[in-house]
Amino acid sequence: MTELPFDQVRTLLAVVDEGTFDAAAAALHVTPSAVSQRVKALEQRTGRVLLMRTKPVRPTESGQVVVRFARQLAALERDAWGELGTAAGAEGTRVPIAVNADSLATWFLPALTRVPQNPPVGFDLRREDEGHTAALLREGQVMAAVTSAAEPVAGCLVRPLGLARYLPVASAGFAARHLSAEPVERCLPAAPVIVFDRRDQLQDRFVRSLTSGRSGAGRLRHHVPTSEGFCDAVAAGLGWGLVPEPQAEPLLRSGALVELAPGKGARVDVPLYWQQWKLDVPALALVAETVAAAAAESLYGGE
Amino acid sequence: MTELPFDQVRTLLAVVDEGTFDAAAAALHVTPSAVSQRVKALEQRTGRVLLMRTKPVRPTESGQVVVRFARQLAALERDAWGELGTAAGAEGTRVPIAVNADSLATWFLPALTRVPQNPPVGFDLRREDEGHTAALLREGQVMAAVTSAAEPVAGCLVRPLGLARYLPVASAGFAARHLSAEPVERCLPAAPVIVFDRRDQLQDRFVRSLTSGRSGAGRLRHHVPTSEGFCDAVAAGLGWGLVPEPQAEPLLRSGALVELAPGKGARVDVPLYWQQWKLDVPALALVAETVAAAAAESLYGGE
Repeated sequence: MTELPFDQVRTLLAVVDEGTFDAAAAALHVTPSAVSQRVKALEQRTGRVLLMRTKPVRPTESGQVVVRFARQLAALERDAWGELGTAAGAEGTRVPIAVNADSLATWFLPALTRVPQNPPVGFDLRREDEGHTAALLREGQVMAAVTSAAEPVAGCLVRPLGLARYLPVASAGFAARHLSAEPVERCLPAAPVIVFDRRDQLQDRFVRSLTSGRSGAGRLRHHVPTSEGFCDAVAAGLGWGLVPEPQAEPLLRSGALVELAPGKGARVDVPLYWQQWKLDVPALALVAETVAAAAAESLYGGE
Repeated sequence: MTELPFDQVRTLLAVVDEGTFDAAAAALHVTPSAVSQRVKALEQRTGRVLLMRTKPVRPTESGQVVVRFARQLAALERDAWGELGTAAGAEGTRVPIAVNADSLATWFLPALTRVPQNPPVGFDLRREDEGHTAALLREGQVMAAVTSAAEPVAGCLVRPLGLARYLPVASAGFAARHLSAEPVERCLPAAPVIVFDRRDQLQDRFVRSLTSGRSGAGRLRHHVPTSEGFCDAVAAGLGWGLVPEPQAEPLLRSGALVELAPGKGARVDVPLYWQQWKLDVPALALVAETVAAAAAESLYGGE
């Protein structure tokens, strides 16, 4: 890897980030043909096709390896500039992090505000499903991720953060209308349900666990793809759903929400992990420590 | 278009939705080779390549036209089943809608809860930048969108909803630290700023308007890609930002936030439009009416 010419690697990164050869040329202040030549030279040197010439351009699997390398290079370089305290480092270190929506809406942002801003650290947050944040790490798009993947991504360190707890809840009116017949596992499969998006299987898994796998969640489903909107939709009575405990708790206390099957201790715990590049960037280490400490306060302990 | 065989059109849609020929085959309960044959037959009939054979599979521009047609067909069919009151219609009508994050966090969800749920209507919300919701309409992925695009998308109706107002705000501590030197347009370009994501140009446009185009927003920027997280990050003092008025107002009253350049009446108004398929589906008409009425209450009137 060390013999990859930096200008070619940087050019490949610009093409992937900008989406087209022309846009990359404009960003780098060179001609499109120079961009094209550098990418071809890099492909010859590595003996691999690195880019799919789609619109926008996308890296192949080999290309993703080089892109990750390019981003790590760029991070180290910015960090060095920052330490040198020169003009080029004035914008400070940037730390791109992928984080799932529920963490972002509950414990994660307060954690970030505790990271000392001297020297300044710019947070570049990417909101992603906790099952898919690992892909952004693999592609080198983020330096770190809050993820449900325990298996370390290539080139990454992993540490457990704790368990995020979800409670099955509904508005009192909704529960009276749809879930009053006992037992709840009989009515739940037919009741309208809120799910985050197509990839969200939490509600289905929960109903399957209650019904010994006989059925999933209801067929009438509302997709509400923001954490706060999800909770609002449940509180408004559009359906039941699994809501993160920190969001559910004040609404349970005020009576706006009721817990379903409370006697059965029904809840879902999702283990979360921190994964980050094995890279000696002080800002990243600082963020990792602060996030782990905040998670220890906010999440439940593991086994 | 009317001579496109429905089974082939439906197969194309399944491939696009499921991402691979194998997954589409599993969803349709046919063999992968049957899926492949139907897609090829449809490509021969239309004389166009409809799919890019990437992973996941993606429709070409011609493919997008057929996909939109397929989704419209499916909507009409579900609607007919619903009116017939048969088992196939038991899941109710689904209305996929693209909506920008700030609308979703403020006025949009309360509007949806007013839509009568008898017969039931399932909302399939897609959160998208207001400048990009129109693309989802064009691709046929949603039936309707809250968008900043005034120009009707092909095959769509458009109606203005009103103006969403954003206020430039910061925490009191942040303002004292970074913005105490008068005039504010001198300090703003150097102060840390919160932006939603890479595509968010609202803060830059605002600073350019204040500085007669001489500079954009600060180089130290935090990307916080949820509406509520954005507001929380501003309140926590990570940076200044343009916050939707309904979110800013309680925090201004409590003193958690202060308005920047209040004497200058500085604010940004973003016009929003409702665009929807020209399709006679009663559920869609009901949603459109309810949304327009709620927008009229919550947004500012146009010129």
